[in-house]
Amino acid sequence: MTPAVKALKIYDWSENEAPKPVDPALDAMVRDIIGKVADKWTMLILEALEDHGTLRFSEIGRKVGDISQKMLTKTLRQMEADGLVSRVVHPVIPPHVEYSLTDMGHSLGGAFCGVWVWAEAHHDRIEASRAAFAARRGAV
Amino acid sequence: MTPAVKALKIYDWSENEAPKPVDPALDAMVRDIIGKVADKWTMLILEALEDHGTLRFSEIGRKVGDISQKMLTKTLRQMEADGLVSRVVHPVIPPHVEYSLTDMGHSLGGAFCGVWVWAEAHHDRIEASRAAFAARRGAV
Repeated sequence: MTPAVKALKIYDWSENEAPKPVDPALDAMVRDIIGKVADKWTMLILEALEDHGTLRFSEIGRKVGDISQKMLTKTLRQMEADGLVSRVVHPVIPPHVEYSLTDMGHSLGGAFCGVWVWAEAHHDRIEASRAAFAARRGAV
Repeated sequence: MTPAVKALKIYDWSENEAPKPVDPALDAMVRDIIGKVADKWTMLILEALEDHGTLRFSEIGRKVGDISQKMLTKTLRQMEADGLVSRVVHPVIPPHVEYSLTDMGHSLGGAFCGVWVWAEAHHDRIEASRAAFAARRGAV
């Protein structure tokens, strides 16, 4: 097996190779991390910073769309704490604050990329499923 | 380039191959899907069903952990509407309801697998970053 094929197999759950930690402490830690990063706002901020490089707070808000100031602040702070985003304050008046992805942020963006690919590949089927579900519920 | 290497490259954002749709309607659709599926409960339910096959409602709740009944109901209903989960009601008294992943649910599990791998690979660095962040904030 070539290294590339071996690496690809990591993503294939159908062969029961899900990377599940057996140590309960590690399992709890990984679940905590998933709980923090598996979030649509985190994914959309990663995407905005991946696409545009360094951005100011208000620019991130515009790229992400309908996120509240409070949620944007909270999500960026969590991403900074986790080491996904670096925040640089330029000491001018008023202060100029810029955000960009760290190496670890880029790597999480890469990991989520599979989910974007999935969403693009399956949106037709998802919409058909939603319509069928709504029809079934309407019929009951 | 072998097909395996080509497939792997999808996951590599460093080469600016992010799968970004250019059509605004498609972009909105994909963002809506991401908004629904990029969620820690969805990820944890996918994992429980991937590991255990068919499960009853209460069994899923136990495997996922600290999820409320209301959130479990809401998440499973969204996953059923999106075609990720199939729900079978056995007509006994009391009714016996079972959930399992559809093919599309399995494929989303596979797409998220990269995020689990990432969380396992980076938990040490994330914890170190959180400790350093807390120390910085304490020092201010």
